[in-house]
Amino acid sequence: MPVESFEPQGSADLRAANAAFYAAFEARAPETMAALWARTTQVTCTHPGWPTLHGFDAVRASWAAILGNDQPLQLIVTDEQVHVHGEVGWVTCVENLLGEAGPAGSVAALNLFVRGRDGRWLMVAHHGSPVASRV
Amino acid sequence: MPVESFEPQGSADLRAANAAFYAAFEARAPETMAALWARTTQVTCTHPGWPTLHGFDAVRASWAAILGNDQPLQLIVTDEQVHVHGEVGWVTCVENLLGEAGPAGSVAALNLFVRGRDGRWLMVAHHGSPVASRV
Repeated sequence: MPVESFEPQGSADLRAANAAFYAAFEARAPETMAALWARTTQVTCTHPGWPTLHGFDAVRASWAAILGNDQPLQLIVTDEQVHVHGEVGWVTCVENLLGEAGPAGSVAALNLFVRGRDGRWLMVAHHGSPVASRV
Repeated sequence: MPVESFEPQGSADLRAANAAFYAAFEARAPETMAALWARTTQVTCTHPGWPTLHGFDAVRASWAAILGNDQPLQLIVTDEQVHVHGEVGWVTCVENLLGEAGPAGSVAALNLFVRGRDGRWLMVAHHGSPVASRV
């Protein structure tokens, strides 16, 4: 398969969708977060250390629980790489978490989106996993 | 987005591609494993606890290291859910690892494939993360 077959045509919109996901996360905004996902039973979400959740309702409930907390949260997203193939796009990135006492670990993420009929990218899968500290 | 927009049309071939991935893993067959991936700089692989690796060469080298070990490995794959949207397919599943002494933990996986011009599904991303034991 040639590299150009999934060159990031349309990647600016996809980067914006990925940024909106992290903005909703950092703002602890569950309704904004829910609106970024496809409302189907087919979506999946794997939070770090969790089993995979299936379906919009389970995914929305998990974000409501995670975001319904008033501890300050700062996320710095790095190493973003964007891929588009047809009406599907995916982004790999690193979520660098900052707590009150400084760096609080990093999470490797794979975020998968499908372009809806209105051209908007909707999230269909998120998979985050803790990156072990280097020794 | 209606649910049927990513119903698993063509899912039998995708299930077979996912099964081939785990067969290569369990057989500790690095060449077979390498042949299942798209040969581009765009592929990504996140082994449990690892940072994401980018590009076919890095991914192939990581599998060579992981598979180049003669300890018995048994994997039981459960909870497989298959999604196809256009020329992109993805599978979520659980990798249940069995060691010599019994169950050795489970990994939540998201495997992403792109259909090549010959109709064959090629892996473009694998993301595995350890599932914390339930207390």
